[in-house]
Amino acid sequence: MPKNKKEAIEKRKLDHLKIVFEEDVGFLKTNWLEYVEPVHSAIPELDFISINTQAKFLKRVFSAPIVIESMTGGTKAAAEINARLAKVAEMENIPMGVGSQRIAIEKPELAYTFSITREVAPKAFLMANLGAAQVIKHGEEFAWKAIKMIEADALIIHSNPLQELIQPSGDTYFSGLLHSLKKISENIDVPLIVKEVGCGISLSDAIKLRDVGVAAIDTAGAGGTNWAKIEGIRARKEGDVLREKLSMLFQEWGIPTAASVAEISQLDGIEVIGSGGIRNGLEIAKVIMLGAEMAGLANPFLKAAKKGEKSIKKLIEQLLIELKTTMFLVGAKDIASLSTSQRVIFGPLKTWLEQRLGSLKR
Amino acid sequence: MPKNKKEAIEKRKLDHLKIVFEEDVGFLKTNWLEYVEPVHSAIPELDFISINTQAKFLKRVFSAPIVIESMTGGTKAAAEINARLAKVAEMENIPMGVGSQRIAIEKPELAYTFSITREVAPKAFLMANLGAAQVIKHGEEFAWKAIKMIEADALIIHSNPLQELIQPSGDTYFSGLLHSLKKISENIDVPLIVKEVGCGISLSDAIKLRDVGVAAIDTAGAGGTNWAKIEGIRARKEGDVLREKLSMLFQEWGIPTAASVAEISQLDGIEVIGSGGIRNGLEIAKVIMLGAEMAGLANPFLKAAKKGEKSIKKLIEQLLIELKTTMFLVGAKDIASLSTSQRVIFGPLKTWLEQRLGSLKR
Amino acid sequence: MPKNKKEAIEKRKLDHLKIVFEEDVGFLKTNWLEYVEPVHSAIPELDFISINTQAKFLKRVFSAPIVIESMTGGTKAAAEINARLAKVAEMENIPMGVGSQRIAIEKPELAYTFSITREVAPKAFLMANLGAAQVIKHGEEFAWKAIKMIEADALIIHSNPLQELIQPSGDTYFSGLLHSLKKISENIDVPLIVKEVGCGISLSDAIKLRDVGVAAIDTAGAGGTNWAKIEGIRARKEGDVLREKLSMLFQEWGIPTAASVAEISQLDGIEVIGSGGIRNGLEIAKVIMLGAEMAGLANPFLKAAKKGEKSIKKLIEQLLIELKTTMFLVGAKDIASLSTSQRVIFGPLKTWLEQRLGSLKR
Amino acid sequence: MPKNKKEAIEKRKLDHLKIVFEEDVGFLKTNWLEYVEPVHSAIPELDFISINTQAKFLKRVFSAPIVIESMTGGTKAAAEINARLAKVAEMENIPMGVGSQRIAIEKPELAYTFSITREVAPKAFLMANLGAAQVIKHGEEFAWKAIKMIEADALIIHSNPLQELIQPSGDTYFSGLLHSLKKISENIDVPLIVKEVGCGISLSDAIKLRDVGVAAIDTAGAGGTNWAKIEGIRARKEGDVLREKLSMLFQEWGIPTAASVAEISQLDGIEVIGSGGIRNGLEIAKVIMLGAEMAGLANPFLKAAKKGEKSIKKLIEQLLIELKTTMFLVGAKDIASLSTSQRVIFGPLKTWLEQRLGSLKR
Repeated sequence: MPKNKKEAIEKRKLDHLKIVFEEDVGFLKTNWLEYVEPVHSAIPELDFISINTQAKFLKRVFSAPIVIESMTGGTKAAAEINARLAKVAEMENIPMGVGSQRIAIEKPELAYTFSITREVAPKAFLMANLGAAQVIKHGEEFAWKAIKMIEADALIIHSNPLQELIQPSGDTYFSGLLHSLKKISENIDVPLIVKEVGCGISLSDAIKLRDVGVAAIDTAGAGGTNWAKIEGIRARKEGDVLREKLSMLFQEWGIPTAASVAEISQLDGIEVIGSGGIRNGLEIAKVIMLGAEMAGLANPFLKAAKKGEKSIKKLIEQLLIELKTTMFLVGAKDIASLSTSQRVIFGPLKTWLEQRLGSLKR
Repeated sequence: MPKNKKEAIEKRKLDHLKIVFEEDVGFLKTNWLEYVEPVHSAIPELDFISINTQAKFLKRVFSAPIVIESMTGGTKAAAEINARLAKVAEMENIPMGVGSQRIAIEKPELAYTFSITREVAPKAFLMANLGAAQVIKHGEEFAWKAIKMIEADALIIHSNPLQELIQPSGDTYFSGLLHSLKKISENIDVPLIVKEVGCGISLSDAIKLRDVGVAAIDTAGAGGTNWAKIEGIRARKEGDVLREKLSMLFQEWGIPTAASVAEISQLDGIEVIGSGGIRNGLEIAKVIMLGAEMAGLANPFLKAAKKGEKSIKKLIEQLLIELKTTMFLVGAKDIASLSTSQRVIFGPLKTWLEQRLGSLKR
Repeated sequence: MPKNKKEAIEKRKLDHLKIVFEEDVGFLKTNWLEYVEPVHSAIPELDFISINTQAKFLKRVFSAPIVIESMTGGTKAAAEINARLAKVAEMENIPMGVGSQRIAIEKPELAYTFSITREVAPKAFLMANLGAAQVIKHGEEFAWKAIKMIEADALIIHSNPLQELIQPSGDTYFSGLLHSLKKISENIDVPLIVKEVGCGISLSDAIKLRDVGVAAIDTAGAGGTNWAKIEGIRARKEGDVLREKLSMLFQEWGIPTAASVAEISQLDGIEVIGSGGIRNGLEIAKVIMLGAEMAGLANPFLKAAKKGEKSIKKLIEQLLIELKTTMFLVGAKDIASLSTSQRVIFGPLKTWLEQRLGSLKR
Repeated sequence: MPKNKKEAIEKRKLDHLKIVFEEDVGFLKTNWLEYVEPVHSAIPELDFISINTQAKFLKRVFSAPIVIESMTGGTKAAAEINARLAKVAEMENIPMGVGSQRIAIEKPELAYTFSITREVAPKAFLMANLGAAQVIKHGEEFAWKAIKMIEADALIIHSNPLQELIQPSGDTYFSGLLHSLKKISENIDVPLIVKEVGCGISLSDAIKLRDVGVAAIDTAGAGGTNWAKIEGIRARKEGDVLREKLSMLFQEWGIPTAASVAEISQLDGIEVIGSGGIRNGLEIAKVIMLGAEMAGLANPFLKAAKKGEKSIKKLIEQLLIELKTTMFLVGAKDIASLSTSQRVIFGPLKTWLEQRLGSLKR
């Protein structure tokens, strides 16, 4: 990789962080979780103190169905954020992903910004991370390098066609991804996860992914951080009118989180992390009620990690009490019980599921 | 009970009254009764003067399907309010509940604040009242004491899991409630009623309650006074950020009154008081049309009782003329006829009932 | 009738006119005709000039399906308005109703304010008019007097339970109306029409009315002039708080015009005038498309009549061009064809009809 | 044609252009394409560069499913606009229509304003254009003249009953159109297309058109330029109150583009151009997803053409990248694949299609 290209990647990553913190990068549309209404139970028949939030995901038991989503890496500041998150991930026993490791594979002197997670958290469940384009081009080689770099417990491949399209010099060669995923899944010894970055994943995609050996899907649905918008802001700053217009036209593109989770959770043989704009424990519970195994959060963890470990712990404490409150109020003593609790589906989510799936009643 | 705990209860009760009168403690969502549209009859074939509002509830005949909901007790001011309400309840022949009697069981010198109701209203239908937590801990003993204190005609157990969760040092041990209710229902000689305090009761809860011998349910659905909000205001004043945030997140939690009434009224073998944000006689009629036997009001009676007996009577007079007007306009000569009158269901209430029950047509 | 009572009626009629012209007396809700969407035809296959708006109603052929609704009478000003309307009704060959004739039966010196219609319009189709309460009390006697007074071609009985309830000293004895209607229909030699005054008529009422011999129904649905509001304004002016509150609570009561027309038009053996808030020829067409034989307008005719005959004619000209434009655009050469034209039903009207009738498709 | 009539036509055409550029001539309602939600694919399995936008229409293959809609002609300025558009149409290989040629048939010295298109674009697919009224009156004679004038590859007949009605001295004789179309289709040697001008075309009209030999329909649905409004502005300027009121009442009349396309695309044996308020490549894609073969744009091309050829090319470049982006994001490698891509239908479009067609699921 030529030096100026690597610098371009570093520059882009800094741009991203800066834009995420300084500009409004949300969707006009929500993640549609407000259209999921849990049914209150006045006689929960359980003690709040006895509620068990343990969640099983990829054959490991975590203390809660909460995932620290892949976020960052590649810079000194990112290394610090990764270290803080990893320490808490180990302490609290919840899984954590790192940002795209491509830069560190191509520029090994940056590998420490990722491997620091394993150093500070030898027992944490850490997830390596590569982009679809790298996987298509470099297949198992990059996969192995990414896994080894952090002694990962799973490998995430993120597929982000819209972002790549709007990103100047983005990589828009996506054919062959399924083939590459199949080969990787057959040859690596950790589970393979595929995620989007804000546009969600459909049921038909989930079927294809399962059939090439993908073990879990992370929805990253629409309603959270909006990469089309972020890349559009960058395009505007660079005076690229065509891409700026493209960004504006596709800013609301994507499957809202609730719709994505609900449709792919219909499928047997693949586990689901519901993510995309999740901000509190009530939304974590709703994602579980729609059928996900886990709920992933990025932005709240990023903000907390900038402040320090203590803030991350406090965030998790708050999420847990909110999750347990929801479980108490629907009378669910554990996550299995929560996942089959009664709920009513409203609005566009109802329309979506009626057209794409069968009955809603439960 | 240690003295400081009892004082804490007294303090809490005063806080509650103060907050109810001074702050906005409603829901953003309504009780959904606006989604029930009675079908007008242009040829009612009856004389307004002959309309009969008599309602049968728990084997007794009342002059109207109106319940003075459980509200207060435990303080001198509360005693006065209780006395005023009880006098009118007897005069008008409508049932009345008292506030939670726990404080008076634990601090007998406060029993007069409840028993005054029986003194001034020897023939009124009075309902004793205890919280679910007390019932789980003290079972029949407290039940008998509460009933005896006011020579009650029925015993209400209120179950308020959300409020207890948000309330500082709230009691969140709810397992065993059904067992306790079963034992009480088998051993007391008055009917047992279970109510919520603003989150409604679901059909599945109603089935469980009926099966342990509960004779009636008072929905206390969402859309009226918002206890999560009230406890959140208290938490804020006490600087308890975690509970304040919890209150904000769950402020809109709960089954709206219309949904709760409609779904539990499907059930045979248990009577229903529809309550939660009911403010006039048109809403009383709608609750009956959804299948309830009675409609309960708290806030309007509390405000009237602060002014005096005359205001309470005036309130009832207004509610009756509004109820009778609705009956006249749908051509219902009595409550039985009203309960089967034609109505159309709109909006989220329609969605709720379609997903949870069968057809809406009538 | 005591003199002061008659004066009270006259006073009330003047109040009504004054309030209608000076205050906002509409509904918040509409007549729901905006939820009826005719399907445009790009190839109408007809010439605008050849469109035939002739409509058959009660065995007579009119030049258009437009009815001048019952409005006024009993005062000198009303006589003038009635005369102007009757002249145009004859010229344009459309039916016309007069206001309630009770006052002129009880105070014969006012009969001229009604009979002037027949004097100026010997061949017009004129409709006599009495209230339900008079019919119950005085039966055929009043019916004959009203008919004879204007040599009427039909007799309208208006039934207005809500207005009577809110009106100070309103007549709220409505039992026996069906029996009286049956006797009248058997004994008079003109067709009998029943109408509401702004709350609409339901399918079940329509069945009862047909079965006692009523030949036509005039819906007078909600969405036009709001009598509950008008009587509430009067109550407020008279300091009658209870009735003012009653008026406010029931201001939105009633079946919207489109719903009333659509449901009663399902019924064979009775003709339908759709009325209630109809303001233009597009709405006239929609009422026909929902199944009515005729469309009735009051307020636009009242305003035009105050200005003079020329304004009434201009109004009819405008209504006709609007009606014919709609007919042209759906490719309907005549009223029969219009009544079966394609349309789509949206929003609450769709919900209403789905719950109350079968399929909507056409 | 008398000279003053021809001048009136020229004057009208200038008025139209002026009003389109200077006033707000849109609908309050949209073209309903926002109710079509394509389902995102995270694994498109294709390379952006390999996306093929070629579209087959009327047995010819174009480089994209984009039509330059019929717009103008008859004036010197229009000739220039037509020339610019035709040059780009040929270069980019997309079809183009000209404005109504009636004026040039009746005033042959203006023929150059149309024929210039063929001169500058000998190989372009050019579509002649006549109004329904001319076709009814002059049949094949005018059809031949219009085709010959530009050596057209197809003939468009535009049918605009609403515009003619509101237009002062508009032609409202529409009977016989189907018969004329049948004769023309049997006798000309190019395909016949029928289009509206902003009110859309229904399924039942489409069936009739197919059955007389029409090869394609151009919907020109509601949601784009509003001719009722434009003619109303002209009527207002001319002080014609009756027509101005008529314009206001029918401004929202018409079948929204998405509804029109979806329903007529159900029909075999006729091709569809979806048009009416289409403004970008995402909307072009949605129209294809609803079943159209091509998507037509007028206003964006008119604005670009006023600036020059370069702007027209830039517009097409932008439309293509937007179209290809949509195709990439639903994983459609070509137009055939796009047309069967998954989408969800919301809101009034869902209601429309449920009432008019069968299931929505795909």
